[in-house]
Amino acid sequence: MLIDSMYPKSFASDNHAGVHPTILEAMAAANHGDAPAYGGDTWTSTFEEKIKAAFGPDAEGFAVLNGAGANMVGLALMLGRYDAIICADSAHIATHEAGAAERLLGVKLMTVPTEDGKLRPADIKSRLGGIGNTHESQPSVVSISQTTELGTTYSPTEIAALAKTAHESGLRLHMDGARLANAAAYLDCDLKAITADAGVDVFSFGGTKNGALAAEAVVVLDQSLAHAVPFLRRQSLQLASKMRFISAQLSALLTNDLWRQNASHANQMATRLADGLKNIPHVSLAHPVQSNAIFATLPPTTVAILQQRYLFHYWNETTGTVRLMTAFDTTPEHVDDFLNDLAKATAH
Amino acid sequence: MLIDSMYPKSFASDNHAGVHPTILEAMAAANHGDAPAYGGDTWTSTFEEKIKAAFGPDAEGFAVLNGAGANMVGLALMLGRYDAIICADSAHIATHEAGAAERLLGVKLMTVPTEDGKLRPADIKSRLGGIGNTHESQPSVVSISQTTELGTTYSPTEIAALAKTAHESGLRLHMDGARLANAAAYLDCDLKAITADAGVDVFSFGGTKNGALAAEAVVVLDQSLAHAVPFLRRQSLQLASKMRFISAQLSALLTNDLWRQNASHANQMATRLADGLKNIPHVSLAHPVQSNAIFATLPPTTVAILQQRYLFHYWNETTGTVRLMTAFDTTPEHVDDFLNDLAKATAH
Amino acid sequence: MLIDSMYPKSFASDNHAGVHPTILEAMAAANHGDAPAYGGDTWTSTFEEKIKAAFGPDAEGFAVLNGAGANMVGLALMLGRYDAIICADSAHIATHEAGAAERLLGVKLMTVPTEDGKLRPADIKSRLGGIGNTHESQPSVVSISQTTELGTTYSPTEIAALAKTAHESGLRLHMDGARLANAAAYLDCDLKAITADAGVDVFSFGGTKNGALAAEAVVVLDQSLAHAVPFLRRQSLQLASKMRFISAQLSALLTNDLWRQNASHANQMATRLADGLKNIPHVSLAHPVQSNAIFATLPPTTVAILQQRYLFHYWNETTGTVRLMTAFDTTPEHVDDFLNDLAKATAH
Amino acid sequence: MLIDSMYPKSFASDNHAGVHPTILEAMAAANHGDAPAYGGDTWTSTFEEKIKAAFGPDAEGFAVLNGAGANMVGLALMLGRYDAIICADSAHIATHEAGAAERLLGVKLMTVPTEDGKLRPADIKSRLGGIGNTHESQPSVVSISQTTELGTTYSPTEIAALAKTAHESGLRLHMDGARLANAAAYLDCDLKAITADAGVDVFSFGGTKNGALAAEAVVVLDQSLAHAVPFLRRQSLQLASKMRFISAQLSALLTNDLWRQNASHANQMATRLADGLKNIPHVSLAHPVQSNAIFATLPPTTVAILQQRYLFHYWNETTGTVRLMTAFDTTPEHVDDFLNDLAKATAH
Repeated sequence: MLIDSMYPKSFASDNHAGVHPTILEAMAAANHGDAPAYGGDTWTSTFEEKIKAAFGPDAEGFAVLNGAGANMVGLALMLGRYDAIICADSAHIATHEAGAAERLLGVKLMTVPTEDGKLRPADIKSRLGGIGNTHESQPSVVSISQTTELGTTYSPTEIAALAKTAHESGLRLHMDGARLANAAAYLDCDLKAITADAGVDVFSFGGTKNGALAAEAVVVLDQSLAHAVPFLRRQSLQLASKMRFISAQLSALLTNDLWRQNASHANQMATRLADGLKNIPHVSLAHPVQSNAIFATLPPTTVAILQQRYLFHYWNETTGTVRLMTAFDTTPEHVDDFLNDLAKATAH
Repeated sequence: MLIDSMYPKSFASDNHAGVHPTILEAMAAANHGDAPAYGGDTWTSTFEEKIKAAFGPDAEGFAVLNGAGANMVGLALMLGRYDAIICADSAHIATHEAGAAERLLGVKLMTVPTEDGKLRPADIKSRLGGIGNTHESQPSVVSISQTTELGTTYSPTEIAALAKTAHESGLRLHMDGARLANAAAYLDCDLKAITADAGVDVFSFGGTKNGALAAEAVVVLDQSLAHAVPFLRRQSLQLASKMRFISAQLSALLTNDLWRQNASHANQMATRLADGLKNIPHVSLAHPVQSNAIFATLPPTTVAILQQRYLFHYWNETTGTVRLMTAFDTTPEHVDDFLNDLAKATAH
Repeated sequence: MLIDSMYPKSFASDNHAGVHPTILEAMAAANHGDAPAYGGDTWTSTFEEKIKAAFGPDAEGFAVLNGAGANMVGLALMLGRYDAIICADSAHIATHEAGAAERLLGVKLMTVPTEDGKLRPADIKSRLGGIGNTHESQPSVVSISQTTELGTTYSPTEIAALAKTAHESGLRLHMDGARLANAAAYLDCDLKAITADAGVDVFSFGGTKNGALAAEAVVVLDQSLAHAVPFLRRQSLQLASKMRFISAQLSALLTNDLWRQNASHANQMATRLADGLKNIPHVSLAHPVQSNAIFATLPPTTVAILQQRYLFHYWNETTGTVRLMTAFDTTPEHVDDFLNDLAKATAH
Repeated sequence: MLIDSMYPKSFASDNHAGVHPTILEAMAAANHGDAPAYGGDTWTSTFEEKIKAAFGPDAEGFAVLNGAGANMVGLALMLGRYDAIICADSAHIATHEAGAAERLLGVKLMTVPTEDGKLRPADIKSRLGGIGNTHESQPSVVSISQTTELGTTYSPTEIAALAKTAHESGLRLHMDGARLANAAAYLDCDLKAITADAGVDVFSFGGTKNGALAAEAVVVLDQSLAHAVPFLRRQSLQLASKMRFISAQLSALLTNDLWRQNASHANQMATRLADGLKNIPHVSLAHPVQSNAIFATLPPTTVAILQQRYLFHYWNETTGTVRLMTAFDTTPEHVDDFLNDLAKATAH
């Protein structure tokens, strides 16, 4: 069992960070008397208004408990019984949700190999050959991740092109936005530019990896779909009874651009780390750093030495690639200490 | 939209209450530096030990996010593809989880009508006739609720008799313990007496309705089943990434018998309310009060008057039965005010 | 293991009968050269035209392999992820399809107790209270069986009243027509009068129990639903590759009213049997005889004696009720022999 | 709509062929009096014995209605709720069963790209990295097709190596044997050599593509699994009520090695066709011909001319590859006519 305090700072995941003080204070402030359960409270009304303020008047926001839950509820809205989802083969829904897509949604994932975790319009087109063929699952949704599992980011133009391709063939576009804030911070745009304005139909807006305790939003831009969310959220085990405490977290993130402060800081720490890595011999970056994730290739002996002191994981042990994540509370000192220790370790 | 502050105290649900200060403090205390995600942290180890202390060395506890989630994960452990669950027709899994049992578990609920929400051994036996018949779903689990949806409570002897009947026919016994604490407080026994000692195989231990923010435990007493829980919890969207904050809530409840303090208090307030109701003309109790729930039959005009000031709901509008719930933070003044207002309303 | 030849005639099920010679000849006639698979053949075109001739120009027919398959494909067309089916608690989908509705459709069966296997409009209305409640499965389909599992039959007027009630609340009406032919024969009407003309949206038309080898049709009257059938049929394992041999069976039944000849004969044999039963002491009918099924209550000793010579089963061993089925090939001699043996057995 | 008689012989699929006369006669011979339904008849007993004779005393055979059904029933036996199947990306279960694996089984297909449709032990090993990782589907079954979708065939040694690899890691080996007979005929071995003797746990034995009307068998060699088949078969809509007519087809195939006669003949016709193709300019074989399937690359103009007279389909329109299938009733004249027409077409 890990002794948590022995590690100076984890680079293993933005989930290893705690809760941003402002968010915890917002939760404590919500603990005041009674409130209707399941979302009939004023904290939830405020959250819903903040979603409209951020994503436009057509956006309907629904608070849920975790990222996989947000994906499953959002996708279920758009999928019939014999449908398929086109996604990158590195997509979280395809690799790290324990088969929830297959069991809870009951649909096929048409996975596409990619270099950088990003789908292109041609990838969509290449998977449409079976439309109308009774023997094949029918693609009805394209799902992309912003940022991707490889830390890369879609530009607004790239998203719009995917949306156009999807819509022209009768498919909808879903975005797994567990790190949507990191993408907007990297692109220096608002959240709307890479969702509503780019033609996304349904997406998630992640809070947990960006300083919340446990809070994500499913956001629906296609009004014809929104009525089903409350039922699917309940059935999918994603409805909090004391909802005010979930809504309060999301509202805090959407107040005074806390989402952007947290994400920008994490991104800056990743850039600082990446810049440092470039100067260390035998270390190379596997993907461009466009968010708070760094994929770097290190010598195995170096990894072994560093893991005695730092929490982080291999992404691909065969290639020697590790993933390093920064968070809202990573400090320059954390980064510099890591870089120093890494430089020493490579010198062995 | 409700204006939360206009109501002096909600009697609609124990979910309308906030978070007990000790639990919120425990969450804040856990917000200290980094911790491994998904349960690899020391708060979760502590929670696991406290489960063993409460339920015996064979008990394996797994923290989840809500009551429906705890039920679905616990039940999924014990169900094959053509199985059925025997339960009361008032069971939460049958009535208020939006069909999660059918969609997520894919099994039939063999529901049994009951007077008081409680199954008897004969109810189990009456549903076993199709065992071995290829054309029928095969009952493999009996699920009971402690307390029941009607506020009634099974004694340890009653549970043991159900376990014996289930086991003799090769079925397992599941308990929906969303209000397990209220039952133990009512029976004045420890938690083990109505679970492990009575022959229950898998159960949930609810925190949310007893002062937590969002925290329930799935507890597995049959060691052959425990290995599957982490996978099912992940797939069922019930795994918190920042698990320490869920574990800390449950540990707080299991420290210094906070669970019992909260539940006993709520039960006492229900008894106080029930005692008062007995003295008011045109008001009668529909079920014995054995926890923190009162089912009372009131004249419709009285209900209409009271609902202008108090939050509570009809359980059955046809019979005029309302449900009144008390919580850890209901005060004697809340109860007495309600009774006074009710007495006035009936005098109209 | 049963020695088939020891029994003079089975009264256990219309499934114990073989294949009507005309149907077997039609299958042999279809065995001529090659034909496109999966329904692209001329026998299937003919079948589709005969469905339109029988049920009207809006009727789209799809051949499937068995009755449970016809039900699951037909129902899946009309059900979303959090929906429920209202049906009699004796419905075949609820009792004898091994939980296919729950596992394959993933929905709740809201079962209604009935005296005679028949739903009434009030039964539908009584199950609509949860519409709009996020915590409850949402009824979207009413499913009735024509004839019912208890051998009773809905009149055209009764069906129209159910359709009206369902449609007024936004639900669709499904009919399990495994014995639709027996109903039309009993009512002396055409097949259209109790389906399309009465407001049914989707139904099955059974062949197997009426002299076919293995052939049922899913018939869709709501054109907006028909496009999904080929995909659902394929996915639900109900698509025959050598479809011409399934289509040929159904076309044979729909030619020269063979369906009516077979069903009328079976019904007449049931009436003959029921008339005889009325004259035998200690024997009573449990339900009106309105098709080819007789439910009769017999002394246990009588049943034991008769089962040495005849195949038939208890429907309810507690009440002493047995089910006796006649088929297209039951002869008056079969019936009279059975009655004679029964009279002797009761005299013991 | 196709006019069936305009085509001299279809090379599109072995499903375009009719029923072998011996099999149709066996079905007619079974149409004699009554028989218990659902498999309690003597034809089914005979079938079960013939399965043991062919595959060994541990083999339990269960008749089902089609190939996808045989796959789903056989696989469901071996799959838990968070499991995965390792298979070739060309596997029928992955490509042509309309998502039945995902919806009916609820599991992930871990598909492996292959050159020739055949898995190797290393392919299995490469997919085992996530075993024990809570976030990933857990591989529990390897499924191979014999013959593969590309017409290639596994040798007994190759199968044994896959079984060994699977078993060593705690996985089971499933075989989609829709064309098992063609494989055994090609390998000149008995059916047991490539199933029971090679370590396969569960497989299907296909009849329909080899001269039956609609009949496949699920064969279980692991006795601990067999008890579940009747329930899964019923629930999966694969149980014929008039089972004798399905069993009779399979028994006919297993009598006097009719399965081998039919398959050998089809294979020989494929070899004749392949040999002819080799001599035609601009035509090449895409895969070795090891059964009754030929994959050939033809100029598009040639394909267009031939399709005016012959039924066959592109396998991959981009590469110009077509699939040509022979059947039990393909004659040398059919093959030679096709080759002559092809030679003429390429000369254009």
